[in-house]
Amino acid sequence: MNKGRGFASDNNSGVHPAVMDALNRVNEGHVISYGDDPYTGAAIKKIKKEFGDNVEVFFVFTGTGANVLGLRAATESWNSVICAETSHIHCDECGAPEFFTGCKLLTAATPDGKLTVDMVRRYMHGFDFEHHSQPGVVSITQATEMGTVYTPAEIRKISDYAHSLGLLVHLDGARICNAAASLDVSLRAITADAGIDILSFGGTKNGLMYGEAILFFNPSLSRNFKYIRKQGMQLASKMRYIAAQFDALLAGELWLKNASHANAMARMLADKASAIPGIEITQKVQVNGVFARIPPEIIAELQKEFFFYIWNEEASEVRWMTSWDTTADDIAAFTDLLKNKLK
Amino acid sequence: MNKGRGFASDNNSGVHPAVMDALNRVNEGHVISYGDDPYTGAAIKKIKKEFGDNVEVFFVFTGTGANVLGLRAATESWNSVICAETSHIHCDECGAPEFFTGCKLLTAATPDGKLTVDMVRRYMHGFDFEHHSQPGVVSITQATEMGTVYTPAEIRKISDYAHSLGLLVHLDGARICNAAASLDVSLRAITADAGIDILSFGGTKNGLMYGEAILFFNPSLSRNFKYIRKQGMQLASKMRYIAAQFDALLAGELWLKNASHANAMARMLADKASAIPGIEITQKVQVNGVFARIPPEIIAELQKEFFFYIWNEEASEVRWMTSWDTTADDIAAFTDLLKNKLK
Amino acid sequence: MNKGRGFASDNNSGVHPAVMDALNRVNEGHVISYGDDPYTGAAIKKIKKEFGDNVEVFFVFTGTGANVLGLRAATESWNSVICAETSHIHCDECGAPEFFTGCKLLTAATPDGKLTVDMVRRYMHGFDFEHHSQPGVVSITQATEMGTVYTPAEIRKISDYAHSLGLLVHLDGARICNAAASLDVSLRAITADAGIDILSFGGTKNGLMYGEAILFFNPSLSRNFKYIRKQGMQLASKMRYIAAQFDALLAGELWLKNASHANAMARMLADKASAIPGIEITQKVQVNGVFARIPPEIIAELQKEFFFYIWNEEASEVRWMTSWDTTADDIAAFTDLLKNKLK
Amino acid sequence: MNKGRGFASDNNSGVHPAVMDALNRVNEGHVISYGDDPYTGAAIKKIKKEFGDNVEVFFVFTGTGANVLGLRAATESWNSVICAETSHIHCDECGAPEFFTGCKLLTAATPDGKLTVDMVRRYMHGFDFEHHSQPGVVSITQATEMGTVYTPAEIRKISDYAHSLGLLVHLDGARICNAAASLDVSLRAITADAGIDILSFGGTKNGLMYGEAILFFNPSLSRNFKYIRKQGMQLASKMRYIAAQFDALLAGELWLKNASHANAMARMLADKASAIPGIEITQKVQVNGVFARIPPEIIAELQKEFFFYIWNEEASEVRWMTSWDTTADDIAAFTDLLKNKLK
Repeated sequence: MNKGRGFASDNNSGVHPAVMDALNRVNEGHVISYGDDPYTGAAIKKIKKEFGDNVEVFFVFTGTGANVLGLRAATESWNSVICAETSHIHCDECGAPEFFTGCKLLTAATPDGKLTVDMVRRYMHGFDFEHHSQPGVVSITQATEMGTVYTPAEIRKISDYAHSLGLLVHLDGARICNAAASLDVSLRAITADAGIDILSFGGTKNGLMYGEAILFFNPSLSRNFKYIRKQGMQLASKMRYIAAQFDALLAGELWLKNASHANAMARMLADKASAIPGIEITQKVQVNGVFARIPPEIIAELQKEFFFYIWNEEASEVRWMTSWDTTADDIAAFTDLLKNKLK
Repeated sequence: MNKGRGFASDNNSGVHPAVMDALNRVNEGHVISYGDDPYTGAAIKKIKKEFGDNVEVFFVFTGTGANVLGLRAATESWNSVICAETSHIHCDECGAPEFFTGCKLLTAATPDGKLTVDMVRRYMHGFDFEHHSQPGVVSITQATEMGTVYTPAEIRKISDYAHSLGLLVHLDGARICNAAASLDVSLRAITADAGIDILSFGGTKNGLMYGEAILFFNPSLSRNFKYIRKQGMQLASKMRYIAAQFDALLAGELWLKNASHANAMARMLADKASAIPGIEITQKVQVNGVFARIPPEIIAELQKEFFFYIWNEEASEVRWMTSWDTTADDIAAFTDLLKNKLK
Repeated sequence: MNKGRGFASDNNSGVHPAVMDALNRVNEGHVISYGDDPYTGAAIKKIKKEFGDNVEVFFVFTGTGANVLGLRAATESWNSVICAETSHIHCDECGAPEFFTGCKLLTAATPDGKLTVDMVRRYMHGFDFEHHSQPGVVSITQATEMGTVYTPAEIRKISDYAHSLGLLVHLDGARICNAAASLDVSLRAITADAGIDILSFGGTKNGLMYGEAILFFNPSLSRNFKYIRKQGMQLASKMRYIAAQFDALLAGELWLKNASHANAMARMLADKASAIPGIEITQKVQVNGVFARIPPEIIAELQKEFFFYIWNEEASEVRWMTSWDTTADDIAAFTDLLKNKLK
Repeated sequence: MNKGRGFASDNNSGVHPAVMDALNRVNEGHVISYGDDPYTGAAIKKIKKEFGDNVEVFFVFTGTGANVLGLRAATESWNSVICAETSHIHCDECGAPEFFTGCKLLTAATPDGKLTVDMVRRYMHGFDFEHHSQPGVVSITQATEMGTVYTPAEIRKISDYAHSLGLLVHLDGARICNAAASLDVSLRAITADAGIDILSFGGTKNGLMYGEAILFFNPSLSRNFKYIRKQGMQLASKMRYIAAQFDALLAGELWLKNASHANAMARMLADKASAIPGIEITQKVQVNGVFARIPPEIIAELQKEFFFYIWNEEASEVRWMTSWDTTADDIAAFTDLLKNKLK
């Protein structure tokens, strides 16, 4: 029995033991609330070590919170935000970006979740024309919602182009650790060093209980961010517990270990599944997601034992996510089941 | 040495061991995210047992989130919300209620943080007049920000009056457990049974790591709340960890033990402090806050050893909060220090 | 000399003499402000005669105001609005719909500015799923921004489909009079009788000085609209002057005469222009707009004498709008110039 | 017969003949829409002559639009706006300021509608504290809603104080012409020269059909205002007609003549009414409003012949507004009626 284990999402997994240890460890005595405590200071220091001294760091609760508040800091309500049609900010945040920033989201259809300069260029008009939402931000996701990654050079191309027109670049990094692991580069190489202005640095999907960080590589953007965060209902009173988790995530490269493991499990799953007749992998498997076309008649039965989501009902395309706690046994059990159903 | 212990706020304390145990206990395996898991179901069941079967329950992250989203569910943007001048929604949420709901907050000066029907009545005009923000909600805080409590009858008077005019009643219950403990009544007696429509049921200040619940006693109000919560960036992916904390809080009446203890410590502090010449207690001490007028010249020195906040600089009035983990030793050490400074 | 006459937009023209007369006529004595006056009553009566007794009518100032406030009345902030990629609400309102309603706009690429059921269907998923903006409204423009019209049957198909899924249908009728004239049907036939729920009934582009009307064919939608209009800053104090203009527009079918004339002028322009080698008409000419591909090198010179806008720079496509006051002489002078430049 | 004449509001009157003439005069031929026309240029030039070359001018439709958009330009959503409890922005705009800016309005009770530095000072705390809405703007009304005026020195005191703390000063000038007439000073003396940053320059209540202007004396504030106006649904397409009205208002000091006349009529009404036993004038009569306590039993009967509003039902206090078209005969007829009823 798999005891509810599955491939639905990397947020179905629990908290990594090292993170849980950290939570237990900081649970002593009193500290000033709202971030003015030594644990928060220490965690920010570790993040700066990873991303550069110039970065400004703010913790929030959720990925949607990180994305929306980050965009808010970078926009006026008459701006537009250019993003992929599959992006989380467009598909999975119930319109929170529009509601909270007032901005218009302009989307590009992509084959693999990745924006290109050409896709962005299409929206680069109407500058200074008051009838037109003013292009303000390009938002990309790394790794993408389709399990693919941008190379540092690809990001640089987008950010150079955006900056040349006065736009800012936001990166939804709910799975940035998986991307860095996949590319075998530092977190800095695909953010600060590639021209990113604002990063949603994801923690929850990589072994935390809760908590994301917003990083501003352009410190002038964060000048008023403390008000945005408070008014955005994302200021934690007992901040030490978010800080402790990030501290643990950055200690001993836990972020990299967790992400590498999840990626490897996806690789293993894709390799085993693609060897089964009737299964077609539909996207490059670069991080911890596997997209596959499978016979529709077996989906419901599979889901009973290992839950996962249908991505595209018409195409009979499904999404399998692995996580820091997926095991080779999970993969074996699941691919055995697959083979069995497809016999 | 007090190791940073103090009386700044009940959110400077940590997580109660039983709550931490619960977090450790649910940290196993995979569960569906966003609340569709057995832990969340179990916690909601416990809450319903406490508050009544008709209540609808939604977990969020912060007290501001609970207040603002609860008000959003109860209002249209052209409504006004009547509240005390000292209320958290007016003073301490950086305008989040106005920003997120669009509503106007109308405030009443109170001697003790408590609204009365007469104070509300002043704003009951302009109904149906389109130039005027339409009175929509009365919001009260229990226990109040001044450390006082409403009796069930006092709440009932306000809610009957509000309902008679078509308004709803919201209760900011960041410290509702302290109020119930002080009044020696059930949580239901000062909410569902007293006519409250929406409750922000606080957890963080009473021993949780994070997490509040929004309770709708009028289920029609919660019909669209799942969208409000998601768009409000307060939907937790790993919901089981908020649920587990509330489960622990309600198990074996931990909520009551924690709150009673904090209240008793405040009582002890007030008693000892009021016996010291030069110190005047300025509000009734009904829950876990003590307001006192003390000589201004000793404030800074006291704060070095036991941190607390100045409430009213001109009046030299300070606020001392106790919490579930305040000890008699803390009180003794602090009052000894007080005596010493005032010799 | 053309004295600044041109084909830039139907809002470059002035006020029809009969409308100006009406303004002069009502300019006497005192009347209650904000719409509680006999002139407003009389104008609404005329509108009801045209559209049906069940309609609720509210005057506002601008077309953007009418669209945005109408959408507001029909949505919650977590809804999405499906519209054509070329729609005014998406392209020409500086994000006011997103800002004021909080909703997400979902756009469909169209060949001719017209939505179809198939285009709408693509977005009909994610119902009841809190991560997803809930499909709430289909918004179409009649006549479209591309100078084309929907037949009553085409509108009915869309509204039946939308209603079958619980969505409402909004019609941006900035040029609805031109559409009715073109189709030779009543205003009611393409609104109330075709299943439209909310209409922005345009006046300014058809000979008024200012003023649009919002019509609710589903009166329950207008229940709170007076607050939406006031909070939306679109409540006129001296309402009689908007009312008088609409009264004049509906008297003696002035709306139809103005629109028919503008349409005929566009027809004439298209006929003459299409006979000139080097000019290609790119859209059906069904109302008062002509879209044409012309040699890029002559555009700037033409604009000096008759101003108009470039629609698509890359395709060298321009837009010529006629209006109630365009004359056959204007057309002749302009097409002579065209011929001359293309010799 | 008074033919519906009364003292309800200065917006119950019609359009001054010179303004109507101007509307008729500009109604010829085509001009570019949205303000890029010679009439708009000319009107702005006249306004600059009156207020100073540095001012930036934008026309909008309504007084609420002018106030709200002006505040929007001066604030971030986490700011507070300090104003009198009787101010139009607080009482009569259905929460539009909160909805559109996100800001919190903080009000001061005043005896006469006038803010003082002491009233503002009360709210000058919590700077830099993220839990607290940051004081951003002081908004005063000139003439006030109570019919009183600030002297230039009184305004200067407030603006100096506000500026010393980094706040901006907004002036709701729906009746600024009446104030200037009353004080016998230029419009500039009570705005630009007194330290005002943003002015809502009212037209509608002083003889226009519709149209207000927003003036920025600090041009950096208007940098993005064109987007705010468009997104705020207050950009007129046929701008020439607002411009023509302002042009007429400033030509030959019509603004002053209209306002002086209205003021004189109020003075006359107050003088005659106060001579009648049983009537008590309750506010200084400095502009075109008279506040009076009259026996409650005669109110309804009076209103049948000359409509006016009850200001304070409990106190039996009423408000009588005069306007540019009030005549000495109106006053005589009304005061005769008063005398008659009080015999």
